[in-house]
Amino acid sequence: MLLNCDMGESFGVWEMGVDEQLMPHIDLANIACGGHASDPNVMSRTLALAKQHAVTVGAHPSYADIAGFGRRSIPYQTDELTRLLLTQIGALDALCQFHELNLSYVKPHGALYNDMHKQPAIFEAVCKALTGLNKVPQLMVHATQCHGFISELAEKYQLSLIKEAFCDRRYLSDGSLQARSQTGAVLSTKEHILEQVDLLLTQQSLRCADDSLLEVEADTLCVHGDNQAAVKLVQAIKQQIQRSKKD
Amino acid sequence: MLLNCDMGESFGVWEMGVDEQLMPHIDLANIACGGHASDPNVMSRTLALAKQHAVTVGAHPSYADIAGFGRRSIPYQTDELTRLLLTQIGALDALCQFHELNLSYVKPHGALYNDMHKQPAIFEAVCKALTGLNKVPQLMVHATQCHGFISELAEKYQLSLIKEAFCDRRYLSDGSLQARSQTGAVLSTKEHILEQVDLLLTQQSLRCADDSLLEVEADTLCVHGDNQAAVKLVQAIKQQIQRSKKD
Amino acid sequence: MLLNCDMGESFGVWEMGVDEQLMPHIDLANIACGGHASDPNVMSRTLALAKQHAVTVGAHPSYADIAGFGRRSIPYQTDELTRLLLTQIGALDALCQFHELNLSYVKPHGALYNDMHKQPAIFEAVCKALTGLNKVPQLMVHATQCHGFISELAEKYQLSLIKEAFCDRRYLSDGSLQARSQTGAVLSTKEHILEQVDLLLTQQSLRCADDSLLEVEADTLCVHGDNQAAVKLVQAIKQQIQRSKKD
Amino acid sequence: MLLNCDMGESFGVWEMGVDEQLMPHIDLANIACGGHASDPNVMSRTLALAKQHAVTVGAHPSYADIAGFGRRSIPYQTDELTRLLLTQIGALDALCQFHELNLSYVKPHGALYNDMHKQPAIFEAVCKALTGLNKVPQLMVHATQCHGFISELAEKYQLSLIKEAFCDRRYLSDGSLQARSQTGAVLSTKEHILEQVDLLLTQQSLRCADDSLLEVEADTLCVHGDNQAAVKLVQAIKQQIQRSKKD
Repeated sequence: MLLNCDMGESFGVWEMGVDEQLMPHIDLANIACGGHASDPNVMSRTLALAKQHAVTVGAHPSYADIAGFGRRSIPYQTDELTRLLLTQIGALDALCQFHELNLSYVKPHGALYNDMHKQPAIFEAVCKALTGLNKVPQLMVHATQCHGFISELAEKYQLSLIKEAFCDRRYLSDGSLQARSQTGAVLSTKEHILEQVDLLLTQQSLRCADDSLLEVEADTLCVHGDNQAAVKLVQAIKQQIQRSKKD
Repeated sequence: MLLNCDMGESFGVWEMGVDEQLMPHIDLANIACGGHASDPNVMSRTLALAKQHAVTVGAHPSYADIAGFGRRSIPYQTDELTRLLLTQIGALDALCQFHELNLSYVKPHGALYNDMHKQPAIFEAVCKALTGLNKVPQLMVHATQCHGFISELAEKYQLSLIKEAFCDRRYLSDGSLQARSQTGAVLSTKEHILEQVDLLLTQQSLRCADDSLLEVEADTLCVHGDNQAAVKLVQAIKQQIQRSKKD
Repeated sequence: MLLNCDMGESFGVWEMGVDEQLMPHIDLANIACGGHASDPNVMSRTLALAKQHAVTVGAHPSYADIAGFGRRSIPYQTDELTRLLLTQIGALDALCQFHELNLSYVKPHGALYNDMHKQPAIFEAVCKALTGLNKVPQLMVHATQCHGFISELAEKYQLSLIKEAFCDRRYLSDGSLQARSQTGAVLSTKEHILEQVDLLLTQQSLRCADDSLLEVEADTLCVHGDNQAAVKLVQAIKQQIQRSKKD
Repeated sequence: MLLNCDMGESFGVWEMGVDEQLMPHIDLANIACGGHASDPNVMSRTLALAKQHAVTVGAHPSYADIAGFGRRSIPYQTDELTRLLLTQIGALDALCQFHELNLSYVKPHGALYNDMHKQPAIFEAVCKALTGLNKVPQLMVHATQCHGFISELAEKYQLSLIKEAFCDRRYLSDGSLQARSQTGAVLSTKEHILEQVDLLLTQQSLRCADDSLLEVEADTLCVHGDNQAAVKLVQAIKQQIQRSKKD
């Protein structure tokens, strides 16, 4: 079970996150590439940091929306979206080459990530971008939502999926995330989060909002953190994973 | 002797140039990649057009300056410039992969092109960008200004240079272009332009503003065109080159 | 009956429209202010041109979407939208002051114009922007869609409406425009357009797609033009209006 | 003696500064208006904060350079610069109207601020922007560099100047700031800073790097702060000023 985390979301003089503190503890860095955040300098220093800690790097492309941090569903035509994603991934990939790194996977960001799990046309636009590259990266998706058109299109385009689960979000029994507006949608205590991680590690399951168990085959857990407390939590999750390996 | 031309300089809904009419007549397309012009859609359709006419494609990166069309010398730190160029070249390269094209060379645009011929630090920043790529592209430079630090740095970085001359600009005897503010700096009649082309083809020379002859080993001529008359002129130059080959 | 026309939609080095040829024939210039097109230079020269021809100037703000020319419905929060519109209108207004012109009205552009006629919250966000200004401008709306919440909110915010009709679009009997995807949605011959203008001038009516007559109290006709033919058509419409005044 | 401070330099989701903590202690807020930082939302909430604390608001325009935070000298034509400044000031002014505030003054930012003190053409471009407005704002300049062309052009354009001194920068005897690369250019201890403030308050003088005394008629002191320690320092300066008033 690998840990993935959004990284490199600073922009110009504006800093975001504590990348230097988190990078040592994660396995997969989803690196912003100019769509919702980042610029050539931020990308470059984030890649250098990933290299230093031998973290696998992935692109974290987005609708082109710095003003809205990629959180708004901007209505693109699907062909346009494929081209937009290619330019963002290509920008990061050139810097990967400069740093002698491989770009291993792509995890779309924000509204695009949500939209692609709901709209086949958007998911297919993403598939076309990835398979358009000479060295096709893997694609990260929700572990709980990779059935139906997601798996069908991934198969059609021969894309390899990385399936992620969230440590700190409450799921509904259909595999979707409970809306943030609902009480309890975000697990707020360390205990609850580590409990969810434990269930994922030992029983490949999630306890849903309606108390049912949902089977989940996850390859990676999504973590994040903007402060010291969050870094400590990530460390705790990492240790829990390492302990579970030994068992 | 090949013809190179700036291509793909539209932006969003705004059109520039008559790319569809010029593409059949040129050999090397310098394709804007978002620095001074273009966007993912414009890049993609320009690449498709180049492919259709079997034209070799190069990247035409620039200082990040859409508002000023890359004509302003923006004071970048050299490391920043290297990273900026990598992201622009990488963006275009990903679309090249999508269209199954090779990105063969890079020709910096506008103020960056001028600056790199004058400032070794800027030229070296360009060299570092190109050699940072897995498949190192060639670099286009002024045929009349590729001695001194240009050739030294190109050798140091093992870059292959493509040397270009201008059909329609008057040169000074030191190999620089006469300032546009000077009368006669731009050759305005078809006859004068074809005469300059003829001298380049038959005697590998340019007639300078002071009437001296300047020896020039050019691999390519830079042409451009925004209207019908310009397209006809490019056709005439192309024919002249083809005739010279037979002789 | 006044003629209004979108003006100043160039951007940087990219030209759009034939503003110099159209300006002498119109009464109200809807001037882009950086949302979907334009920049400080384009705004300034468009205002100078309007002043030269004594044309009344209005702001033509938009969702912030240069890449999409303001044609995409970007999901803004309503408070954000009010602030965005204020900055665009304010930018143009400062240049109006520089040119000693008054900013008389506002006509939202593209997707925002469409959305505000359908969604009360968006229309109210526009109202709040206008009434937030010391000198409240008028607001241009569809003459055929200014009943219901449009007139109620305009009254609530004490906004004065300018009601426009389109010369060259076919209307449905509910006052909406026929979708462009439908055959005949855009009147393509001079005859049909002048016929529609005549009906508006003489009978304050439109002939709808289902052949019914729709009563319309329009203050202004929207014209546009990118080429010589369009300029001639605008001149013809202008003459028709002038003739109708004399009758 | 008033305290002025750069405010509202966040951008989108990216936060900068501790505006909420500093605002209660300052007199003049130099509010970023989209040139080097800020957006409509940040401007609006900064204005609301200034209003809450009855702080006088000024515009803090810049070369258009979000990527470089306005720290790079971008070579504008002077007419373009005037128009650019008008649009930034106008954007903020419209939001001032919305919040029922007056825009009292303008303090150019960063490279523009430096450049205008050295190049008369740039200073004149700023003057033209300000006098182009119906209600001409005051202009903030270096108290130690407002002789020569600065005072001449200010008089020619009938601009009222606000003269500022820096609490924490070492001056040279010609009134310029010691370069940041020099040791001691930035006063780093609270004692040294309060000593400089004391000299300004009691003797209208600055102690220069060469130990000479420079007479300075300053209307305002520039302060800034990104953290708790800086806020405390600003409070201390404020108290020192209040004590000096009573004496």
